[in-house]
Amino acid sequence: MRVYNFSAGPSALPLEVLERARNELTDFEGCGMSIMEMSHRSEAYEAVAHKSEALLRKLFAVPQNYRILFLQGGATAQFAAVPLNLSGPNRRAAFINTGIWSSKAIAEAERYLDDVVIAASTESTGFNRVPEPGEWLDTGPVDYLHYTDNETIGGVEFASIPASGDTPLVCDMSSNILSREMDISRFGLIYAGAQKNMGPSGITVVIVRDDLLGRARKETPSFMNYSIQSKNGSMLNTPPTYPWYLLGLVLEWLEGQGGVKAMEIQNERKSALLYSALDQSSLFYNPVEPGSRSRMNIPFILARPELESLFLQQAREAGLVNLEGHRSVGGFRASLYNAMPYEGVSALVSFMSDFEGRHA
Amino acid sequence: MRVYNFSAGPSALPLEVLERARNELTDFEGCGMSIMEMSHRSEAYEAVAHKSEALLRKLFAVPQNYRILFLQGGATAQFAAVPLNLSGPNRRAAFINTGIWSSKAIAEAERYLDDVVIAASTESTGFNRVPEPGEWLDTGPVDYLHYTDNETIGGVEFASIPASGDTPLVCDMSSNILSREMDISRFGLIYAGAQKNMGPSGITVVIVRDDLLGRARKETPSFMNYSIQSKNGSMLNTPPTYPWYLLGLVLEWLEGQGGVKAMEIQNERKSALLYSALDQSSLFYNPVEPGSRSRMNIPFILARPELESLFLQQAREAGLVNLEGHRSVGGFRASLYNAMPYEGVSALVSFMSDFEGRHA
Repeated sequence: MRVYNFSAGPSALPLEVLERARNELTDFEGCGMSIMEMSHRSEAYEAVAHKSEALLRKLFAVPQNYRILFLQGGATAQFAAVPLNLSGPNRRAAFINTGIWSSKAIAEAERYLDDVVIAASTESTGFNRVPEPGEWLDTGPVDYLHYTDNETIGGVEFASIPASGDTPLVCDMSSNILSREMDISRFGLIYAGAQKNMGPSGITVVIVRDDLLGRARKETPSFMNYSIQSKNGSMLNTPPTYPWYLLGLVLEWLEGQGGVKAMEIQNERKSALLYSALDQSSLFYNPVEPGSRSRMNIPFILARPELESLFLQQAREAGLVNLEGHRSVGGFRASLYNAMPYEGVSALVSFMSDFEGRHA
Repeated sequence: MRVYNFSAGPSALPLEVLERARNELTDFEGCGMSIMEMSHRSEAYEAVAHKSEALLRKLFAVPQNYRILFLQGGATAQFAAVPLNLSGPNRRAAFINTGIWSSKAIAEAERYLDDVVIAASTESTGFNRVPEPGEWLDTGPVDYLHYTDNETIGGVEFASIPASGDTPLVCDMSSNILSREMDISRFGLIYAGAQKNMGPSGITVVIVRDDLLGRARKETPSFMNYSIQSKNGSMLNTPPTYPWYLLGLVLEWLEGQGGVKAMEIQNERKSALLYSALDQSSLFYNPVEPGSRSRMNIPFILARPELESLFLQQAREAGLVNLEGHRSVGGFRASLYNAMPYEGVSALVSFMSDFEGRHA
């Protein structure tokens, strides 16, 4: 029996993707070996790599003046890679702080920058919203403006892309990439670990405007240098070939589902269903301001905390798993990435309603 | 039909490992999801991670005062991580240069060190051997001595561990880790990408003596900082969960084969079979000095280069694939890692003998 897996990452993958991976695991396209046994320089593997890049470019409407890189180390590596690669003449960058992931990006960047400017922060209200345009400071000249489009732990998401003027906008899109259409031309750089909306862990996508290449500081490790990796087709070092292949399978699945627009509509429906249930409940509630609520990660709290472990246990018995909140905040969290079907959210909402009926 | 895959990396994996991975791909131990859909913080996944660490420690006889880390970025990332983490008071390190991979490690380290000392090099003889003890320079005080135990491209391997006195010895063991018993206490640090002898690409093992932790320069990216990763159980960032799991399966297979000593005997037999055939042939030859020959990667050259493409084509038809030499050197290369069965080498030797009979 397959469960509904609400894990925040690594997270649920489409069953069709897993079944296809299984069916070709020991023999890829009749070549007598697994794709994970193939050289990354082989024709067969290079075809897989190129196809996934082309498909990502098409599905996410990435303009031709952007390079797509497939790297390692997740967002955490990018927290260092971004200042190493992009902090040019000013050695100053600005950050919007909307929660735990923004804060981690800021802490790592502080080790590389002379000046870290907090353009806006919602810390004073417990990171329960994104900042209003009126709250922004004038940052002066900075090399880039960094923000986290979706806070996986706090469940706060930007409804629209923040304005950055001529300053390159850098976005951690780890937990909502490919979940809705985006005007990529608004960004200087986007990065995202694959393990939420795109595949398994171990591979990270970087989308970078080509005029931002070639600025890396000399102390940048070569394998983190966007320019060097771009010239080497993301194969300066041996790439994580199997995660990359799986990412490609997820992209093919996404195309079959109707692409990013279809996902956007579905993600809107799924999250609306759960928020509506939470807002109507007298037992459960979501702490985020309505205009800043994430469609991907929905934290919720029980008004009667003594029922928490019972809730989790009965949910598990009903095939609804990994609903625990992040260990730093507690409570519950349902992650509704692209691979979570509407039926999974519907089952969760029914279960919560029944649970509430039993404990009202 | 399964082929014999002589790829230098990513490379052949044991069929039993692939079949087990396939059988549990969509449902790991009855939990209703794939292991690649699980949080790295889940109990089920942490058990997999801990088990693989304990098994590696046991199989490779890693003493308790060494930490084992599971990182990303392959040897190329370690070329930067080693000087960032270990170049302490002297900012000087020494290197033995035995070929292309040593040279890459040196080039990357030059960007971080004030002084790179070449303790010994065999460049003048075309990297066809490891240096003799008498050829070593006195390096003066250095933070560490780096060498490449096996040159994957040149096919040159150290028959014994070089003496480094009190200087921490750092070893790139990417292409021969777990291929023979090693006295780990001789090393300060060992690193190895998994994609040759231990698993798929996308995961890198670092074995580091614990007194060498805590020396990282402040500009070290956190995810590359051995001390921080050690404190976080190699989970500062989301690890590459599926490659790590596969690495664990390979370790279990290795244990079932009788452990590293059994592999060592088998690797000796396999390489002796091929070298013996090459030395008796008048059509094929290996260019490496006998005392420095690699048991893992055996390059060979055809005395009649016009037959190269015919050889490769007919080998492929006989189910012997990926025998092309590295694109930088040409010729042929057979990689005989742990997962290559004796029968594969035997089939190759028979084919070469037949080919020679047809073209003598």
